[in-house]
Amino acid sequence: MRVWRTLATLSLGAVLGASASCLWRLPGGEQQEEDEEEAVGLLARVPLIPVPSVHAASELTLGRPSGAALMKYGFPSLSNVHTRESYVSSYDPRTRTPAWVIERLGGDTLLGTADRKRCDFKEDDSVHVFHRATNADYKGSGLDRGHMAAAANHKGSQKAMDDTFYLTNVAPQNPHLNQNAWNNLEKLCRSLTKRYANVYVCTGPLYLPRQEADGKLYVRYQVVGGNHVAVPTHFFKILILERGGQDGVELRSYVLPNQPVDDKIPLERFLVPIESIERASGLLFVPNIVRAGSGAAIAGK
Amino acid sequence: MRVWRTLATLSLGAVLGASASCLWRLPGGEQQEEDEEEAVGLLARVPLIPVPSVHAASELTLGRPSGAALMKYGFPSLSNVHTRESYVSSYDPRTRTPAWVIERLGGDTLLGTADRKRCDFKEDDSVHVFHRATNADYKGSGLDRGHMAAAANHKGSQKAMDDTFYLTNVAPQNPHLNQNAWNNLEKLCRSLTKRYANVYVCTGPLYLPRQEADGKLYVRYQVVGGNHVAVPTHFFKILILERGGQDGVELRSYVLPNQPVDDKIPLERFLVPIESIERASGLLFVPNIVRAGSGAAIAGK
Repeated sequence: MRVWRTLATLSLGAVLGASASCLWRLPGGEQQEEDEEEAVGLLARVPLIPVPSVHAASELTLGRPSGAALMKYGFPSLSNVHTRESYVSSYDPRTRTPAWVIERLGGDTLLGTADRKRCDFKEDDSVHVFHRATNADYKGSGLDRGHMAAAANHKGSQKAMDDTFYLTNVAPQNPHLNQNAWNNLEKLCRSLTKRYANVYVCTGPLYLPRQEADGKLYVRYQVVGGNHVAVPTHFFKILILERGGQDGVELRSYVLPNQPVDDKIPLERFLVPIESIERASGLLFVPNIVRAGSGAAIAGK
Repeated sequence: MRVWRTLATLSLGAVLGASASCLWRLPGGEQQEEDEEEAVGLLARVPLIPVPSVHAASELTLGRPSGAALMKYGFPSLSNVHTRESYVSSYDPRTRTPAWVIERLGGDTLLGTADRKRCDFKEDDSVHVFHRATNADYKGSGLDRGHMAAAANHKGSQKAMDDTFYLTNVAPQNPHLNQNAWNNLEKLCRSLTKRYANVYVCTGPLYLPRQEADGKLYVRYQVVGGNHVAVPTHFFKILILERGGQDGVELRSYVLPNQPVDDKIPLERFLVPIESIERASGLLFVPNIVRAGSGAAIAGK
């Protein structure tokens, strides 16, 4: 609870420090003390979830990910789920932005000839017109149409990249953030594919409260355009890193404020305990990951 | 679009004027001009949806409503749906309040020996602890634990009344509103059971934007307690009134601000087009109602 309050009462722009998280060992899912061998540098501060060797990595690294394979770590929520070529997403019809978007990054998705110049941001007709964001909503807002699943993660096919341009994969994002620190975080995700067999990334908006002059906590966020598209106060990105074999899964979870962030600040400074994101977003990640870590669940997927 | 902008840019406390809505005739669902015979008083301003005589009113007025019968007009959303003795609800794990609660009022639910004194507000263990509202969250907030499905609507059995005391049927509500104008609206719902075969009521919170000094629109709401339970800016109540036979269904939809409201203001002044609630809440009511109005759908339910 302490951690959550710390996160939630942060002023916008405050840098979130990473707190020590527990180390999970599977099977069993019991919490154990940090393993000294693992407790070095960054990774000592984030959860580690080894998975059994039945994990079918080869299935996931060949060809486009199917929705089922992509979702092996479970659904953070089950609301308005859409499956695309390059990602699976849940849409929030009240904010007109995604609640979360999950993608898998690997050599097959990063390398290819898909060209961003052939992509245009487009409305998602699958959303009722009352709840649909449009390009016109963003126009004149001074905000970028910020990708949740990044376009550059999906060069493997033009369709995969095209799909990242649906406005249901987009939220209003500060241009400086989008083009600097956030872009660096996206690059980090891609670079991790060199060290991990698979990199799963879950991205979404947050609406965090902060204390105002009366001493009370308020959530306050702008809405833009005729359809009142919500401007998140923060964004999260959760990385599920598969080492392959019996070496398990590592988690890293970041929260960045939706405003200019000096890109000289190391991204490690934005690491937060995943629990704080689960509390703030109304989503659950860890129970799914733990379940997926058990032999039967992994084998079944 | 005009209507929505009118609603959304209202200052808190402004009285929402009812706008003329179209009249629907089923089967076929075509919009038609207002029928002069119907265009008298209040009802001339709200949608009218006649339903075929296959409507099985007797099934609904006998005994406790089953979830299936209660939901004959469809689910406004499919997120985190819970079925209780007296209502069906959808929980919003991010705000820690319901997104909507639907109940049916009739002689069987209003009359009985259930006693409010035997009821206590209680946490809902079916919600993950990260997203669950607790009694402690409300303590010292200065806000009431405001029922969505009202306790007094469910005197038919103690269990039915007890279930309205789950905090998943509750949102932080201004005490003056709760005990005056909102209470009057709840009484109006009960009184309508004398004129209508069945009264369905859907209630929920709204978080409406308003213009701030910089000319931009912002959603701003307080959160209370350690679990950051959201304090809605407004509440909606949608009444689906079944006349029985071939006389169809009437809709009335109200929005009240979550602040003191002079109870001398007639409740008719808080009528709004249902579309404005659908846009603001991210929910859909009318398509479901129209579908339920077709012979097959009604007979099937």
